Amino acid sequence: MNKIRAAVVGYGNIGHYALQALEAAPDFEVAGVVRRKGDENMPAELAPYKVAKDIRELGKVDVAILATPTRSVETYAKEFLALGINTVDSFDIHTQVPALRSELGKVAKEHGTVSIISAGWDPGSDSVVRTLLQAIAPKGITYTNFGPGMSMGHTVAVKAVPGVKAALSMTIPVGTGIHRRMVYVELEDGADFAKVAADIKADPYFVNDETHVMQVPCVDDLLDMGHGVNLTRKGVSGRTQNQLFEFNMHINNPALTGQVLVCVARAAMRQQPGCYTMIEIPVVDLLPGERDEWIGHLV
Amino acid sequence: MNKIRAAVVGYGNIGHYALQALEAAPDFEVAGVVRRKGDENMPAELAPYKVAKDIRELGKVDVAILATPTRSVETYAKEFLALGINTVDSFDIHTQVPALRSELGKVAKEHGTVSIISAGWDPGSDSVVRTLLQAIAPKGITYTNFGPGMSMGHTVAVKAVPGVKAALSMTIPVGTGIHRRMVYVELEDGADFAKVAADIKADPYFVNDETHVMQVPCVDDLLDMGHGVNLTRKGVSGRTQNQLFEFNMHINNPALTGQVLVCVARAAMRQQPGCYTMIEIPVVDLLPGERDEWIGHLV
Repeated sequence: MNKIRAAVVGYGNIGHYALQALEAAPDFEVAGVVRRKGDENMPAELAPYKVAKDIRELGKVDVAILATPTRSVETYAKEFLALGINTVDSFDIHTQVPALRSELGKVAKEHGTVSIISAGWDPGSDSVVRTLLQAIAPKGITYTNFGPGMSMGHTVAVKAVPGVKAALSMTIPVGTGIHRRMVYVELEDGADFAKVAADIKADPYFVNDETHVMQVPCVDDLLDMGHGVNLTRKGVSGRTQNQLFEFNMHINNPALTGQVLVCVARAAMRQQPGCYTMIEIPVVDLLPGERDEWIGHLV
Repeated sequence: MNKIRAAVVGYGNIGHYALQALEAAPDFEVAGVVRRKGDENMPAELAPYKVAKDIRELGKVDVAILATPTRSVETYAKEFLALGINTVDSFDIHTQVPALRSELGKVAKEHGTVSIISAGWDPGSDSVVRTLLQAIAPKGITYTNFGPGMSMGHTVAVKAVPGVKAALSMTIPVGTGIHRRMVYVELEDGADFAKVAADIKADPYFVNDETHVMQVPCVDDLLDMGHGVNLTRKGVSGRTQNQLFEFNMHINNPALTGQVLVCVARAAMRQQPGCYTMIEIPVVDLLPGERDEWIGHLV
């Protein structure tokens, strides 16, 4: 069997877990890791792999797993798609997904490549469940309740605020899809807490939610990567009311994101050129091996 | 907008609810209903529709919703696919799904039509959830716990046993995917209960489960079409253990099946010729209207 050669681009939390998921997958080969720092200060687990600043140093790459900050996804994806490399990412700004899909779709089609975007757990696997429930109970309301848990996207956004040395943004579900944001910050010397707190609350990631910012001496002591979701829908099938659905998860957040990215990296090898979200690809394409086998086991 | 012209074939419980789901759908037009009895003893709600013994009397039909007993699905599907009509069904003998898919796939490809099989809630929407969870936590165990609720497939199987006048098979979850079958039968005059009970227990639908058969004076007094599922997976994402997932439903059983059939009837219009299970089609294809709109709302 020809294994799929995947590169991990960016080696923070998600890159780390994506690499573990690649190592555990029967049908992948790690082409290497792309880091801004190249092979400087390399974590021990990268010793077996090629590590470079430029993806073109890794030999043949079938698919690049973009484990970069969300706001860098578009730039990297366009570059790699144009090089003939499929890309997958977990771009998590829900409102900007259609625009990113349209932009990357043009580049992908032009170069005969595939991009699967916003493939984490939300957006991502939760989106698949939401779409399924919308279909099978077309009238009704879906609530997606997150947490309690650390939001990686929100935490990265806080870290980008001037004066912030370290940060943690916790998502607290308060019901019916409403969340409180508990933000813990460690400040740089001389930073003004009031200014930092105001900047955070004005960020698009926080501006619509009840947000509390707290200064702490050491953010690291608070870190736990457990997270959760409780997704509910009460709706109508045909003319029948009160159809009740619920999806729950309690998971290690970056580990699940890393695994989803590896699933869609596989699925990317099976789609026609273009850019897709997870709701546009058959779920069976997320699995290794033969479709016929899985149909016998899972249907 | 050109509406999709759908025929309902078979007018028992599922046919009844499938018709309601068609009426509630914005993008469908009811071409008519096919019944063995034609328009004899017609239920009042069929008055607005063409009702016939032969689908060819209904004019143009884009897709036939097979609401027949599971064991008649293959015959009807082959006939309609060869007539240029797409078909959808909720064939529910899990072990025979791959063979049916292969058989109908040949006919569908030969005639440029599409068949989507085993599309109810299990097999069906549950299969999509099982496949998604298998992908995002590749190591681990999934348990599908059904009920308490009436199993339509099992009840039909009991009704086919000689001596049975009326029947109800209830599915009782006893945990870890194990179920007890509680079967209530009303006998025909002169039937031997011991023989009937033995025949039921020997049926492939029951032979692997703890089955209790009870004789009752009136099955109708026991009927309730509520049902449920509790689907769990504890597994490993990459190398991270103890990832926990749970999907729950409390639903009117034939209403959900009827709605799923209408969703896949729509999706059938969007696939290349061939035969598919639900895990092979993008979930967004189950929804009416424009893909781009849904991506903005659901991803």
